[in-house]
Amino acid sequence: MAGKKVSLPKGMRDFGPQQVRKRQYILDTIREVFEIFGYQPIETPVMEQLSTLNGKGGAESDKLLFKVLNSGDFLKKADENALNEKASSKVIAQISEKGLRYDLTVPLARYVVMHQNDITFPFKRYQMQPVWRADRPQKGRYREFWQCDADVLGSESLINEMELIQIFERVFKTFNIPVKVHLSSRKLLAGMMELIGQEDKMIDFTVALDKLDKIGVEKVQDELRARGLNEKAVELIPSIAALSSEKDVMKSSFIAALEKTSNGAEGVREINTIMSRLDFACRSIIIIDPSLARGLDYYTGPIFEVKSELFKGSIGSGGRYDNLTGIFGLPNVSGVGISFGLDRIYDLMQEQNLFPDFSAASTKVLLTYFDEEKLPPLFGIVSMMREANIKAELYPAPVKLKKQFKYANDKGIPYVVLYGDEEADSGEFTIKDMEKGEQFKMDFEKLLEFLKQ
Amino acid sequence: MAGKKVSLPKGMRDFGPQQVRKRQYILDTIREVFEIFGYQPIETPVMEQLSTLNGKGGAESDKLLFKVLNSGDFLKKADENALNEKASSKVIAQISEKGLRYDLTVPLARYVVMHQNDITFPFKRYQMQPVWRADRPQKGRYREFWQCDADVLGSESLINEMELIQIFERVFKTFNIPVKVHLSSRKLLAGMMELIGQEDKMIDFTVALDKLDKIGVEKVQDELRARGLNEKAVELIPSIAALSSEKDVMKSSFIAALEKTSNGAEGVREINTIMSRLDFACRSIIIIDPSLARGLDYYTGPIFEVKSELFKGSIGSGGRYDNLTGIFGLPNVSGVGISFGLDRIYDLMQEQNLFPDFSAASTKVLLTYFDEEKLPPLFGIVSMMREANIKAELYPAPVKLKKQFKYANDKGIPYVVLYGDEEADSGEFTIKDMEKGEQFKMDFEKLLEFLKQ
Repeated sequence: MAGKKVSLPKGMRDFGPQQVRKRQYILDTIREVFEIFGYQPIETPVMEQLSTLNGKGGAESDKLLFKVLNSGDFLKKADENALNEKASSKVIAQISEKGLRYDLTVPLARYVVMHQNDITFPFKRYQMQPVWRADRPQKGRYREFWQCDADVLGSESLINEMELIQIFERVFKTFNIPVKVHLSSRKLLAGMMELIGQEDKMIDFTVALDKLDKIGVEKVQDELRARGLNEKAVELIPSIAALSSEKDVMKSSFIAALEKTSNGAEGVREINTIMSRLDFACRSIIIIDPSLARGLDYYTGPIFEVKSELFKGSIGSGGRYDNLTGIFGLPNVSGVGISFGLDRIYDLMQEQNLFPDFSAASTKVLLTYFDEEKLPPLFGIVSMMREANIKAELYPAPVKLKKQFKYANDKGIPYVVLYGDEEADSGEFTIKDMEKGEQFKMDFEKLLEFLKQ
Repeated sequence: MAGKKVSLPKGMRDFGPQQVRKRQYILDTIREVFEIFGYQPIETPVMEQLSTLNGKGGAESDKLLFKVLNSGDFLKKADENALNEKASSKVIAQISEKGLRYDLTVPLARYVVMHQNDITFPFKRYQMQPVWRADRPQKGRYREFWQCDADVLGSESLINEMELIQIFERVFKTFNIPVKVHLSSRKLLAGMMELIGQEDKMIDFTVALDKLDKIGVEKVQDELRARGLNEKAVELIPSIAALSSEKDVMKSSFIAALEKTSNGAEGVREINTIMSRLDFACRSIIIIDPSLARGLDYYTGPIFEVKSELFKGSIGSGGRYDNLTGIFGLPNVSGVGISFGLDRIYDLMQEQNLFPDFSAASTKVLLTYFDEEKLPPLFGIVSMMREANIKAELYPAPVKLKKQFKYANDKGIPYVVLYGDEEADSGEFTIKDMEKGEQFKMDFEKLLEFLKQ
């Protein structure tokens, strides 16, 4: 084993001290805003029963599940014929009962059903934890990544949507990330289905429309035809694409036509209600975008997607769902939620140099140690500094000073203290400012005061 | 699927808002102390290669690994004969390449080897993350639990041991948990092996001795005989057990005898050096305990275990290891570390009512909503409160006031504000103190000031 090259599983990452601090900063900021809006934290286990996870995000997400092998003699219950045929898909359920969660929404639904008697509704919860997907890793896409979700369950009020948009606005303002919140409603899409007379084709229509940004009008039209949508549907696409240049989408002839359908009218009402209560700061970042589709099947009302000119891909999203907990036997619980992608926000802030300076978070002072006889006072001094909540280190061995200064430099420690015979005699410590290269002398009391600042 | 009973995997737990806050409090406290002592955070992925995890904690811990099934057609590479025989243990390595970490020490060793060129040694790192073991769940033992580790790698200095004991002392003092830190050295055990002339039997001796507390002198002696230890070894056990009643263990005849062996003398020197520098607060919680064995093979120097009269089982532990990274091809890196068990500390603090009051962390004020016409001002008011960093909620629908008060009560929200016609006319809000049951009236400016306190 010795000398064997070690590696991490594909798509997984280590985080060093600076990265952890920066990620913690993002998490703390989002947490603080969630709490100001009255959301409460929950946490769920990394593993869920596969019966909980399977089939909740469609066949595609089942394939992306990391499945955990049963303990012990796991082949015992496996079907012999399936093993002989090497029929992996038949064997899976016999050798694996658990999987790693691929989002925080399915665990939320499971949580609410299991704890329904202890929960006060409307249930405003936030959850910030990692999720796993066995996706093909690529730039900005990892197999282990964090989601930061806030959801309200058990309230149909659009006030929740208004507040969730305020949360987007406040979080990204704090990060100095300019964003646009694209807003629409699944009911506008349902209205379009009424217009073309193909109410049963909404998912096919949505899947194709979702690609408008990426593949353009004509290819979406091709895909619609291939998916069996009629020519009325195909003709809608140019009008939808043209909306992005409208001065006021809600006053466009497209919306006027949609308002004549029952679902469309409801969708328009939702959007108008949300907009009517928001202040200028929020309204100015909203783009009403009827082309917004959001891949997930479970959305039924208003939907959001947050984009920034500084980044390719969305950095936040969300929407309303009417029956999330129904799959687990608790029907009629309407909910709405949003999600922040920690890793994408991190990548964006890193690229754009948006992180504050974190040097204050690491060690403030290094006490050098070069005279063995001085260990007793030095150990007492570093202990007293720590008692005073100063982040302090004592170099653990009397090695060459050059090495100790290099240590301070590499770790970004701003001050280094020297304590040798001269200092012991005079009672004054020598302190070096590593950035400015200047040296001072001061007694212990002044030194403590100085370092506390 | 509808109506199907949902459940969590065995030994896994959900955490509700109050639990998350309390766990966060423990983590924050430990983190703060780690940072004051100059430790820097790292994080590693939940999954590691099985080649990294296997064989590092002995055959026992290999069995406790949760293994992740390879994606896609996982049976493709499996051996046909092994499948036919249902030989689970032969098939494992062919269908699973990844596993969930069972501690933070193996990932640390892997991290240090992979990032050795970017690390400044001595490397003082802390890591607080969950780990998984497919153990039989029982009271206080979970299959998903958190470890909070601090380690120094690349320094042989005993100053590190002194500081780690100071960390134990400070953390548990903050939690108001009375503890004793049991201190010994693996070198005392090596000295005992010299005394009995069976240097090759140290692991067998250690495994048996480790049970002294639980099974008593005679059963340990039986086990020693069964493991092939000689009668000299058997005779040591009563002397070791008797040490707990010594006034000063280091001045006992047992230690005097050990000091005549080369390893024993080294172990005595280690312990004396550590004790010599610690202040009274630390020395007073240390118990020199040569019966301390610590199960893990990799310890080579001083070892610690933290116990409390309030709890069965250890709530902290650690020790020095001389060659942790050697298994991954980086020899000669001495290290020492400690670990706090979040879940046990939580259980202890919960049982003993040691948590501070966390009501301040949740919503401070609920704005009731009972008159639809008042939504515009109410939404503006709650937004302004949040701008002022007051944790505020607006009830999202104009339902009966009784229901809104119940919501505030269930969530532990201390203040409820009423805003109806009377309040709109007078410009004064009615605010109710939920605990005292008292009501006041005040204008918006005073209300903001009041809630900010």
